[in-house]
Formats: sequence, structure tokens, C-alpha cells
Amino acid sequence: MAAKEPIIIRDKDEMRKWTRTMRAQGHTIGFVPTMGYLHEGHISLIQEAHKHTDRIVVSIYVNPGQFSPNEDLSTYPSDFQGDIKKLKSVCNGVDVVFNPKNLYEYGNSQIGNGYERNIKEGKVVSCVESDHETWVRVENLEKGLCGKSRPVFFRGVATVVTKLFNIVEPDVAFFGKKDYQQWRIIQRMVRDLDFGIKVIGSDIVRENDGLAMSSRNVKLSPENRQRALSISRALSRAKVEAEKGQVNCRELINCAIQTINEAGGSVDYAEIVEQENLEPVETIKTPVVFCVAAWFGKVRLVDNMEIDV
Amino acid sequence: MAAKEPIIIRDKDEMRKWTRTMRAQGHTIGFVPTMGYLHEGHISLIQEAHKHTDRIVVSIYVNPGQFSPNEDLSTYPSDFQGDIKKLKSVCNGVDVVFNPKNLYEYGNSQIGNGYERNIKEGKVVSCVESDHETWVRVENLEKGLCGKSRPVFFRGVATVVTKLFNIVEPDVAFFGKKDYQQWRIIQRMVRDLDFGIKVIGSDIVRENDGLAMSSRNVKLSPENRQRALSISRALSRAKVEAEKGQVNCRELINCAIQTINEAGGSVDYAEIVEQENLEPVETIKTPVVFCVAAWFGKVRLVDNMEIDV
Repeated sequence: MAAKEPIIIRDKDEMRKWTRTMRAQGHTIGFVPTMGYLHEGHISLIQEAHKHTDRIVVSIYVNPGQFSPNEDLSTYPSDFQGDIKKLKSVCNGVDVVFNPKNLYEYGNSQIGNGYERNIKEGKVVSCVESDHETWVRVENLEKGLCGKSRPVFFRGVATVVTKLFNIVEPDVAFFGKKDYQQWRIIQRMVRDLDFGIKVIGSDIVRENDGLAMSSRNVKLSPENRQRALSISRALSRAKVEAEKGQVNCRELINCAIQTINEAGGSVDYAEIVEQENLEPVETIKTPVVFCVAAWFGKVRLVDNMEIDV
Repeated sequence: MAAKEPIIIRDKDEMRKWTRTMRAQGHTIGFVPTMGYLHEGHISLIQEAHKHTDRIVVSIYVNPGQFSPNEDLSTYPSDFQGDIKKLKSVCNGVDVVFNPKNLYEYGNSQIGNGYERNIKEGKVVSCVESDHETWVRVENLEKGLCGKSRPVFFRGVATVVTKLFNIVEPDVAFFGKKDYQQWRIIQRMVRDLDFGIKVIGSDIVRENDGLAMSSRNVKLSPENRQRALSISRALSRAKVEAEKGQVNCRELINCAIQTINEAGGSVDYAEIVEQENLEPVETIKTPVVFCVAAWFGKVRLVDNMEIDV
């Protein structure tokens, strides 16, 4: 099949107009939000989208609102031309790449002094708080797992996804389960805020050796790339053990932490939680998910595995 | 003109479907959110809506999410049949009354233990926190004025308006400037979250004697109804004084508080703030708004006056 050239849209109003035109013509719109540096995980979301809708929008936007000033916003990998090339080679392609310049710039409106006040009061801040002040919070789900070490992360994710939903106005949106907590948060947000959007989660795509695909993998040194395999190895082993009858979460977690530590990683958290509410469990009785975040050098990776015993 | 009978819709999906059908036919949708017990202030919003869009939805929904458990949710006045009668008599009428039963009920999904945790941690809660956990916060604008004495109020307002926007999907939405802080918060939220919706604020409608129209006025005893006139009297006097050259806010505020106190009211706050960011000012140099909240018996009233010197 000939490669399909996506339309590149950078303007919010133009994006919304495109969707409304398509919808008026009877089309349905699928939406795959990304931060770019696309890999097979993203491509699998697009392939999933083709099963549900007949028009597809992919956004490429590194969201400063989900990074704390001390996190890796400035070194987040990007390759826009490479991304476009990849999208052109996807079977059936995509229709639109939405690539806005800055989603937090609002022209000449007056700026309040809230930012200075927040700094003064010692509140956590993201990279975009001078003029923007509206945040969507999924107050319980955002607390645990990654929320503990990244205090503005999920607030930033929920807010930018709300913005993108309001701009792209899709019928169905696709998220990878690699970011499991993010996926559950978006599902809950869509329910609680009554978005007219269906959310679909897609399974984790892994390299042949088991490493969960992530844009951050490119930042791993060859040695740390090898060490990072310990995460999926630890999760797979826990799943097998659980299926064989080990339902004591403390045992499963300790074993996984040991595996990762011995490989040279540094575990941020390793928790076995309920699949929907992400509440920690002590004994596996219902479907759970084992979530891990660990550092390898200066790169923090997340991975997880659902255990449906 | 013959009275127009509005369609009454109670179901979210049916509401969204109606708007999409209308939009596909080339119509534009105006939206007037209300908590019912309609008065001339609401009617003026509908009349304003007729100038901007050719289809009009009025929602009638008392939002439990903006009430603390100790506030007046249970005694908030309501008269659905009377409201419908009033809407039928409005010039050109309205097309739809959206009157959902409960916007915070989501079927059989699992409930997390966040509510219990929030109570235990002594967090402020609204009347709907068992299963719902996503809140929209306009973090700076929500802090002052009414936000000080009603800690969950604007969080609840921003959230329910987001929900209603996502269900009704209007082109233009209309809010009364009587709730000045609410109007500014919704404007900011629409900007920050990129809603494809225009927000229009309508001037306060007053009774002949100056009392700002409010659904809560019906709860005033005849004596307190008379005492409550002191608010608009105090605001009008401040406006005249400012126009005559009195730019010292402390003086203007003290005088207003004295007027209301002497009439038998109890001032919750009286502040002169910038019109857009609602930051308190000491000296009037740019357009400001004088905002007051005061109790008369068990009824808390708000009023304000823009001063454009």
C-alpha cells in the first residue's frame, strides 16, 4: 500500500474544526495522544485505533505540565521528522498529526500573582504555572505508585489530556497499559467528568528480550539497557509464582526487589495493587497488577504485569 | 406568541445526542446552567442566549458537589413545575430543559476507600465524595472571596460545569455576574482547559428596590428582606464615592461594612478586587469590582458592583 501522508495541524482551532468537519460527514475519530519519539508501543495503539474508528489523530506534544522543574523535561527525547516517517509507514496510516507549539500560552491576558504565592508557600509546581492555573485532579488514584515520587505528574497528565480531548474532540482515545496508573486515571476522569469519549487500554508491547517499550529506553547506556531487563524478568517470575499458588504479596514483592537490586537497578517502588482502584493488597484473591518503577543510571523506567489468578 | 413547550431530558447520553443532531443540522447551541427556582436573572440569561445561538438548553440541577455537609443543600429552594411554566412564558422559549437525577452516580464500579481516607485525614469534603474523585480546580481564583468561607464551593462549581459542558456540548454558555467570582472562574477554566465554548457574563438583575435577584431571596423573612437592601445600598454608595474621587479602598470598605452592620446584617467579606484576577487592591487605579457576602438570619447573600473609574 502507498504511504499515507498525514496532515500536520499546529493550531487548536484548526484541529477542532477538522474533527467537526469529519464528524459532520459521518466519520468517527480515534485519538492517540503521545509525547513523540514513537516506538512499536505507539504503533500498536494506532493499529488498535483502526479497529474502532475510521479517522485517526495522533498528537505529538511533550507536556511541560506533568514535569517538575527537577525532572527530565529538557532531555526528553524527540525526533519529529523520524516520527512522521514512522507514521507514514503504519498500515493504513493516520489522518492528522496534531503538534501544537505550546498548550499553556494564552495571549495577553493579565497574569495573577498565584505562581509567586505558590512558590512562597512551598507548594509543588510544574514547569508551566505562571499563567495557567486550572488543574484536573483524580484525587485518590493519583496518590499512590508514581504519584508518590512525582507529585505533579498525574495532575499534569489529567489536565493535558482534558485539554487535548477538548481540542481534538475524539470518539475513542487509546492509551498504553505500560503506564497503568495513567490509564486508570484517564478512565476514571472520563467517567467522573462525563466526557463523551470511550477510553481503550492496549497491552504493553515489549522488545524481544522483554523490556517494555518506552521513549526513555534510548537514554539507557548499553550496560543499563541490559540491567533493565531485570524488571520484566522479576515481574514474569512473580506472575508464574502467583499462578503456582504464591498469594503472599510481601514475598512476591521482596523477591522482585531483590532481582532488580542484584541486577544493579534501584527500585523506586514495587507494589501489588487492585486493578481498578490501585489499592495495595496483602494477599492475592482477585485480579491484581504488579507495578514497578526503578532507576537504571539516570533513567527511571516503569513496567507492570496483570495477574488474574 | 404561543408558548413553546421545552423537551425535558434527564439522561446524559440523550442530551449529548440531541446537541449533536442539532449541530449536524447547522444549529448553534446556547447553554444556561441553573440550579432551578428560576427568577428574572435566569430569564435575562435566556434572553441573552437568544441573541447568540438559535437553540437553547437550560439545565436545572442542584449540584451536591458544591455544598459542604454543613451548608444549605437540603433546604435549597426548588419548584420544577413552576420553573417549566416560567420557561414556557419566556419570549421565544427554550428548546431543552436538562434535568438529570444524579450526575455523580456511575453504576456498579468498585468504590475505592478514598472517602474514608479523606475524612480520616480531616480534608474538606462535599456531599458527593463516596465514588466520585475527579475535581477541576482553578487554583488561584478559587482562593479568595467566597472561597475562604466555602472551601469546596468553587471546586464543585468548576467540576459540575465541566460535566455539564461535556454532556450538553454547547457553543456558548451564559453566566450571571451576580456570582462574579464564579463567572471569572468559569472563564479562566474554559481558557485553561481549551473548551471549545464561548462564555458570556450577563449583568446583575435587581428587584425594583435594588436587591440582587437570587433563588435564596425567598428564604428571607420580611424583616431580613428589608435589611438585605443594605448591601446594594452600600455598594451603590461606594461606586458614587469612587466616581467622585475616593480611591482609598479601606475607607470605601469600612463605610460599606458599617452600612450593612447597622442594618442588622453580618458581613462575611467586603473586598475591592481587580476585575480579572480578583486580587485585592488598596487604591483604585484600574477597573475593580466591589464584592460583598453577608448573612441575614440564616441566609447568606452575595452581591457586587463593578467600578470602572
